[in-house]
Amino acid sequence: MREVFHQSLEDVQTRLVEISDLVTIAIDQATRAFATSDVALAEDVIDNDKVIDDKAIALDELAIEILARQQPVARDLRIVVAALRVSASLERMGDIAEHIAQLTRMRFPERAVPKGLKNTFTKMGEIDTEVARTLADLLRTEDLSLVSRLHELDDELDALHLAVFEKVLSDNWQGEASATVDATLASRYHERFGDHALSVAKKVSYLATGTWSADTEGVDAEV
Amino acid sequence: MREVFHQSLEDVQTRLVEISDLVTIAIDQATRAFATSDVALAEDVIDNDKVIDDKAIALDELAIEILARQQPVARDLRIVVAALRVSASLERMGDIAEHIAQLTRMRFPERAVPKGLKNTFTKMGEIDTEVARTLADLLRTEDLSLVSRLHELDDELDALHLAVFEKVLSDNWQGEASATVDATLASRYHERFGDHALSVAKKVSYLATGTWSADTEGVDAEV
Repeated sequence: MREVFHQSLEDVQTRLVEISDLVTIAIDQATRAFATSDVALAEDVIDNDKVIDDKAIALDELAIEILARQQPVARDLRIVVAALRVSASLERMGDIAEHIAQLTRMRFPERAVPKGLKNTFTKMGEIDTEVARTLADLLRTEDLSLVSRLHELDDELDALHLAVFEKVLSDNWQGEASATVDATLASRYHERFGDHALSVAKKVSYLATGTWSADTEGVDAEV
Repeated sequence: MREVFHQSLEDVQTRLVEISDLVTIAIDQATRAFATSDVALAEDVIDNDKVIDDKAIALDELAIEILARQQPVARDLRIVVAALRVSASLERMGDIAEHIAQLTRMRFPERAVPKGLKNTFTKMGEIDTEVARTLADLLRTEDLSLVSRLHELDDELDALHLAVFEKVLSDNWQGEASATVDATLASRYHERFGDHALSVAKKVSYLATGTWSADTEGVDAEV
């Protein structure tokens, strides 16, 4: 029975890695589409989000099946419950990539990226992509040194998010209201992307060490 | 054993209702604080969000304990897994109330509610409060007629959300960049609040009827 259970868990892990690889592709494409107003690439991201959603639903079904058939307890049970949550977070990260793609499509043929913030958003996009790639590596390898790397990347995203607001609220901001709206929404999406990744990293870390870090799940919970 | 299980489920339900009652209070206070720049009330909301977070974590622990001790299968198992998800959604609704309160505090002593949008945001706040109250009633009574009421309320929120953007992007919008930022963020928070409620309603509906509506969980998943 333990053998079967561990085979099932490996299956869960493989699928989580697969979804996070798709999220990495989605956020990379979405942020490049946003930066270059590439509406065809944005459409690809929007279309492909369905694949991520379907895979997350399938993974949830597998987790429920494992609970029903193998009735895990203690740490094994927590791993399966954590997988349900990780899958929800990955799905939301895919949704954020889709939202960034939608902003690009909505403004086309205008540029979605507000003037004066091109470098900032390019940087945020690069960090998001590194966040997703690091998260996939963490799920693949369970190398906990990647958790602190994700903390660093999330801090960088938070700093850039603040920088966007400082810029938009400064006296020399010349953007029209539409640029202000886009900057606000896009920046928030990037910031949330990092938050979701960190929330996954904390779960992986919790399962490996048995303790939550000081800021628990409740505190950083997603909106 | 079934007796014990049903007692446990009732305990879960009671706690979900309790959390949704707290969310109703939080969103009512947060939206009134936002409308009237009542920073003391906003502080209350921010302080009290910790209570919602703690209760959600305690509920998750109870659900995991039920899974471990009573090893439910089939529909019973799905109810417990759904409770974990409902608790996550309610917690996020509490976080949104907190975010609205934080906007109020950040702008104080200025008004957070942008000029020309007071009526719109007052209306959104009233609808959010009715959403939360209806959701608490749904969890309490499992009266599925409340699900369609929640759909209606969510549609109203979506329409107001669009109206905010139309206003902000219209030629006669006189707001400064800070008003545009606040309108964008606040409106998005209100819209997300309705989405989370609908996501809970769909789970309740699914458990009662055994079928998902056309738009499944994956499609409306939260960011």
